[in-house]
Amino acid sequence: MRAVDIIRRKRDGAPLIAEEIRWLVTHFVSGAVPDYQMAAFLMAVVWRGMSAAETTALTLAMRDSGAVLELRQHIDPIADKHSTGGVGDKVTLAVAPLVAACGLPMAKMSGRGLAHTGGTIDKLEAIPGFRTELTQTEFLDILDHHGLVLAGQSADLAPADGKIYALRDVTATVESIPLIASSIMSKKLAIGCSHLLLDVKVGSGAFMKTLDEARALAQLMVTIGRTVGICTVAILSAMDQPLGAMVGNALELAEAIAMLRGDAPADVTELCLHETAKLLTMAGIASDEADGRRRALAAITSGRALAKLMEIVMAQGGDPRVIEDPRLLPTAVVQAPVAAPRDGYIAAIDAERMGLAAMHLGAGRAKKGDPIDHATGLHLLCKVGDMIRHGDPLVEVHARSPEEAANIIPYLLEAYRWSDEPVQPGPLVYEVAE
Amino acid sequence: MRAVDIIRRKRDGAPLIAEEIRWLVTHFVSGAVPDYQMAAFLMAVVWRGMSAAETTALTLAMRDSGAVLELRQHIDPIADKHSTGGVGDKVTLAVAPLVAACGLPMAKMSGRGLAHTGGTIDKLEAIPGFRTELTQTEFLDILDHHGLVLAGQSADLAPADGKIYALRDVTATVESIPLIASSIMSKKLAIGCSHLLLDVKVGSGAFMKTLDEARALAQLMVTIGRTVGICTVAILSAMDQPLGAMVGNALELAEAIAMLRGDAPADVTELCLHETAKLLTMAGIASDEADGRRRALAAITSGRALAKLMEIVMAQGGDPRVIEDPRLLPTAVVQAPVAAPRDGYIAAIDAERMGLAAMHLGAGRAKKGDPIDHATGLHLLCKVGDMIRHGDPLVEVHARSPEEAANIIPYLLEAYRWSDEPVQPGPLVYEVAE
Repeated sequence: MRAVDIIRRKRDGAPLIAEEIRWLVTHFVSGAVPDYQMAAFLMAVVWRGMSAAETTALTLAMRDSGAVLELRQHIDPIADKHSTGGVGDKVTLAVAPLVAACGLPMAKMSGRGLAHTGGTIDKLEAIPGFRTELTQTEFLDILDHHGLVLAGQSADLAPADGKIYALRDVTATVESIPLIASSIMSKKLAIGCSHLLLDVKVGSGAFMKTLDEARALAQLMVTIGRTVGICTVAILSAMDQPLGAMVGNALELAEAIAMLRGDAPADVTELCLHETAKLLTMAGIASDEADGRRRALAAITSGRALAKLMEIVMAQGGDPRVIEDPRLLPTAVVQAPVAAPRDGYIAAIDAERMGLAAMHLGAGRAKKGDPIDHATGLHLLCKVGDMIRHGDPLVEVHARSPEEAANIIPYLLEAYRWSDEPVQPGPLVYEVAE
Repeated sequence: MRAVDIIRRKRDGAPLIAEEIRWLVTHFVSGAVPDYQMAAFLMAVVWRGMSAAETTALTLAMRDSGAVLELRQHIDPIADKHSTGGVGDKVTLAVAPLVAACGLPMAKMSGRGLAHTGGTIDKLEAIPGFRTELTQTEFLDILDHHGLVLAGQSADLAPADGKIYALRDVTATVESIPLIASSIMSKKLAIGCSHLLLDVKVGSGAFMKTLDEARALAQLMVTIGRTVGICTVAILSAMDQPLGAMVGNALELAEAIAMLRGDAPADVTELCLHETAKLLTMAGIASDEADGRRRALAAITSGRALAKLMEIVMAQGGDPRVIEDPRLLPTAVVQAPVAAPRDGYIAAIDAERMGLAAMHLGAGRAKKGDPIDHATGLHLLCKVGDMIRHGDPLVEVHARSPEEAANIIPYLLEAYRWSDEPVQPGPLVYEVAE
């Protein structure tokens, strides 16, 4: 085989066979296929797309480029979840201990945040001492002992994904549904849990801006998961405004803790219960989703869910006192309220702009490797549909200095759209692909 | 500017401004933009195309990546011609001395052949001693003294083109009309003659397979040439069957010499007279094309055209005796006639296949840098439209050994399509873009 022929066939819209895709990935990882041929191939994929069969072949080739854990051969059932990323999305932080507290083991490897979306690992690292870089032995030991583990993405798993993603990032080939699907799923398949719940975010603050795109991505990932025998379900959920009230690392962790105390905003609560019930039902622990919700609520009200989080924090070297008292988490020096500039109903809060505002305050990274401030962020006091009076506190800016807080306010206010008429917020979960 | 943003804009079909294109080319040549970003950009161009303005900007940026001769500031008028390449296309070898003999100076830099098309430089090098690698001083001196110079492409001119072409060759991004146009025109603009005639070949043996593609390429190149003040005309000519009777280096040179003696096949004669008359008219030496044809014929019958070729062969170190007596040119050991396998009319002779057959006999290169055999090739004894009897000699194989000759015959015969009804050959020149 020759790389140029594979590129040409994709360029001309011809279907590739699995052997061609595997050959390309294997030789790219070994260095035999140079970056420039892979870059041309990736742009041809952005152009021509990939069928489900091609995307599955790409995913499997990427999975097989490194270690393959196949956790389900070790513990069954075992759950995994993944969110495509949104602003204020702290659901994983709450759902993981909740699911584990209900008797379904969960192993979660997460990434760091980039640009306007936060990363679960960054949020967990707001806990003093919490270790997310685990050896494979530690990872499995913690999982065995606690039915839960929360780690950073291991570089051993699907290294082809990291190498391809680095190239996509600098060649404008990120925006491709098959490339996004194979990137996510190669890592999920390398972990190899038995039950996988995907949360595909849709809206201004998500990578998928339209329901059609999100549906295509969700269905493609479900097909790939099911092809290798993983019970896979994807929910499509709204990411037009930030999720919940908190945006920022320690702030979001605190909100996840509040969730486990039964004290989170309605949208966070609803999504966490929905996802937990779905996973428990998929794994046969709950008889149906209503039963799953009852089990999740029982784990919250009994304190078992919060106890499970404290247990895993201790197991991974973190200070459990911050879970008991989130006021001990890193706190920003300045907490400046922003007054509403007018009367009216909030018609929209642009999630992407809110995420970028938090990034500018230090809560996120403009580029890979940038340092992060765990304390900064935003506290939304009002959400879409709320009726506001001129001068009411709208949002609280958590900043490192009064200047940084003042500087971000005009940018922040641009995120709000107003209406004189009452506004009905849209649905939180659009649909489920299974 | 950032390369990734320029790639993204092209990927999304947005028009690029000249500054963006120039920035990309300049930084690619300097090494600041890596191969993989240029490769992704090139694939995005294959996908989205380029407007005439974008292609002109790309051409100028490539021209300005190296030395710019601007010959027309030195001698005016001064002619140049370019063929996009075909099988048996020896027209440049005859037209250049013919035009110069009619009083229009001509400076021609040519390339080497690749795959199924021959290169003018390879054909000239069939002349013992003929030097095509000239310094810039030699190039200008010879042009000044003889009104003609025939050289290899200088590496100093448009080096961006060489660097980009090498990348296109291995990333399946050759087939793009704006990239082809800018590659050809960047070198033509760097030479900077006053009058440029382009011969865009159309058909099975050419890069442009359809008249629509060829027309688009021709019009784009004419637009670019005229934008910088070069009087540019493109003719669209047929390349379905090989041009003339000879395919191979010394064989084609001999046919070009025959042309200058007034003794070439009808299609070669017609195309040479057409191109010469067109150039003489463009430059104002002929009052119209009929006058141009009369002048060309007079240069042939008077012997001035052949004398001009001998003069330039001597000036460039070649042995002029081979021009006087082409039987002194390299000759293949084996000259094996191939008998017609049936009665009938020749409906088609696949030029690409004939070119590849000649390549396999040693007359061409499968890849850059391969050695070439000047003696081998094909002598077509019949052309499209001819009525043939079973067993008649169809084509003569000029090979290095009886085995090589025998091996190529089945492949060669596959190039022929037959008809029981009379066949009318198509037009030689489809149209002229000016």
